[in-house]
Amino acid sequence: MENYKVVRPVHLNHYGYLFGGELLKWVDEISWIAASRDYPGCKFVTVSMDRVEFMRSVRQGSVLRFEVSRFQVGSTSVQYTVTVYSDDLDSGREEQVFSTHVTFVCLNDAGHNTLLPNT
Amino acid sequence: MENYKVVRPVHLNHYGYLFGGELLKWVDEISWIAASRDYPGCKFVTVSMDRVEFMRSVRQGSVLRFEVSRFQVGSTSVQYTVTVYSDDLDSGREEQVFSTHVTFVCLNDAGHNTLLPNT
Amino acid sequence: MENYKVVRPVHLNHYGYLFGGELLKWVDEISWIAASRDYPGCKFVTVSMDRVEFMRSVRQGSVLRFEVSRFQVGSTSVQYTVTVYSDDLDSGREEQVFSTHVTFVCLNDAGHNTLLPNT
Amino acid sequence: MENYKVVRPVHLNHYGYLFGGELLKWVDEISWIAASRDYPGCKFVTVSMDRVEFMRSVRQGSVLRFEVSRFQVGSTSVQYTVTVYSDDLDSGREEQVFSTHVTFVCLNDAGHNTLLPNT
Amino acid sequence: MENYKVVRPVHLNHYGYLFGGELLKWVDEISWIAASRDYPGCKFVTVSMDRVEFMRSVRQGSVLRFEVSRFQVGSTSVQYTVTVYSDDLDSGREEQVFSTHVTFVCLNDAGHNTLLPNT
Amino acid sequence: MENYKVVRPVHLNHYGYLFGGELLKWVDEISWIAASRDYPGCKFVTVSMDRVEFMRSVRQGSVLRFEVSRFQVGSTSVQYTVTVYSDDLDSGREEQVFSTHVTFVCLNDAGHNTLLPNT
Repeated sequence: MENYKVVRPVHLNHYGYLFGGELLKWVDEISWIAASRDYPGCKFVTVSMDRVEFMRSVRQGSVLRFEVSRFQVGSTSVQYTVTVYSDDLDSGREEQVFSTHVTFVCLNDAGHNTLLPNT
Repeated sequence: MENYKVVRPVHLNHYGYLFGGELLKWVDEISWIAASRDYPGCKFVTVSMDRVEFMRSVRQGSVLRFEVSRFQVGSTSVQYTVTVYSDDLDSGREEQVFSTHVTFVCLNDAGHNTLLPNT
Repeated sequence: MENYKVVRPVHLNHYGYLFGGELLKWVDEISWIAASRDYPGCKFVTVSMDRVEFMRSVRQGSVLRFEVSRFQVGSTSVQYTVTVYSDDLDSGREEQVFSTHVTFVCLNDAGHNTLLPNT
Repeated sequence: MENYKVVRPVHLNHYGYLFGGELLKWVDEISWIAASRDYPGCKFVTVSMDRVEFMRSVRQGSVLRFEVSRFQVGSTSVQYTVTVYSDDLDSGREEQVFSTHVTFVCLNDAGHNTLLPNT
Repeated sequence: MENYKVVRPVHLNHYGYLFGGELLKWVDEISWIAASRDYPGCKFVTVSMDRVEFMRSVRQGSVLRFEVSRFQVGSTSVQYTVTVYSDDLDSGREEQVFSTHVTFVCLNDAGHNTLLPNT
Repeated sequence: MENYKVVRPVHLNHYGYLFGGELLKWVDEISWIAASRDYPGCKFVTVSMDRVEFMRSVRQGSVLRFEVSRFQVGSTSVQYTVTVYSDDLDSGREEQVFSTHVTFVCLNDAGHNTLLPNT
């Protein structure tokens, strides 16, 4: 699955580049959407995010492309890889700015971990 | 191109459903991204959005899928169709909530309309 | 009815001008307020917004004036005209940036369209 | 001058009522707009806000009406009264929730207080 | 108690300095937290904020330090002093930008003022 | 260093609990402030955040306490530990919800890593 965002002034840190925390918010959101679409009916909560490295500064007006794919499946948890690319709109070239894994568990109505359905 | 959003409390109107204005903001953003990716180097500004009809209320927790495609190409302007679907995560079924066309022109450095490159 | 907003950095697109989607959000909000004040007790939802044309770029620091008036009244729906002007604070002159119609229906407790009271 | 806002979930404190700080933000914005429209060409900055008393809780869905009027004029400063009313949309009745004075000075290009023009 | 914030573009007014209303929001939040931590179990609501004076403009990238201390205790209300300092990160020097008192009452489940516990 | 936040509706995910991405944003901000205060004159950028585990759901109205301390110092980078506690305001008891390390480098005016001053 792919997703896109454009970096506006509301997303900047005080140096005028993308605020890293904003990026982490988007990563959390988009990986949750991917998991929830892959397993309809599951109520997913984020349990962990792997170590993240901010490889380069992202400037205002950049278009970010989020690439999300299922990485590993356990009995009650599933892990997604999120890789973020920044498109240089002038050249059309894109560079990787970030990559991590996000792990989700599926909760039942009582709030306990429950088995994932097969898909 | 496709894009996804999940509806959180921050996006709700005071009835507890998705605030229509929030939806229009996302439509403007995602169609601009589609145009800018199709024509690298163009500086696009939105000139119009066609009549929009809000077909159904969208509740918190809905996952919205935005489907964007190029509709019509003029010499200095280009029009995109944006259709929004709401996924019912429990059933996995989705329903259309919205559709419109958004028109962009490409500006040169002097701020005047300029010819679109062929793609 | 009139309403006012000042354009701050939080409202800008990545070119440094007012993000069109932000403007649409304000138009939706202010026309809903006008309708709700004209028909106390009605629970209004937005059903459509007419084609919109963004006539000129609006820069940071502009004061926007929203002029809202009732345009057409049906049995279960009512339409408002919203025209937006941008005040140039230095000269005191104002220019129109936008105009559209927004249509609302009044819902009863069961969520169905219901007759508008006379006013 | 009058201005209107509707209270949405994004504006609430964790008790589910309007967050007082949000209200103060709106008061600061609307009184600045009033001053700037009365004195075109003046660059105003807020220097003080009088003691404020939060008279009653404001719930989600309330429509707030801000009434702003010029209160006192000095040589380099001007004071505005802002009174906020909450409309009960069901009954059409409104109650005062807040009142204060906000004082502005007009700065010249060097950032110093400057004489107000006559109006 | 102390608290910290860094001023980002999202917090600026259209002159490019900290929007005063944003500062008032933070003052309301941090003094409420201080009161709630001093009196566990009390449900506090803000009843008033003393006159505030904005002593100097705060620029993007400033780190604000909020110093909060209990000032006066009544039978059903308590007053906190909030003083805000802006750190000049280059020099390490800090300057006071703001000071006020915020008063809270403790409500019982019926929504009436109730006696503060001794602490 | 300590910092505090109260969880309001604006911070919630669509299940009604604190959105994890919001928490990561605060962690990024507060650790940056700690680093910048420890090394006045350094321009810090975040280079990495260690693996994070979301140990428990955080509900609306919780007061979060962020504890930040310097963990490891290299020649051009410095690492801070951020531990987040959620205060149960009724009982006054607090529970750990989160812990990670955040690493910063100090940039010179040319945008290259530069030696940290001794402190």
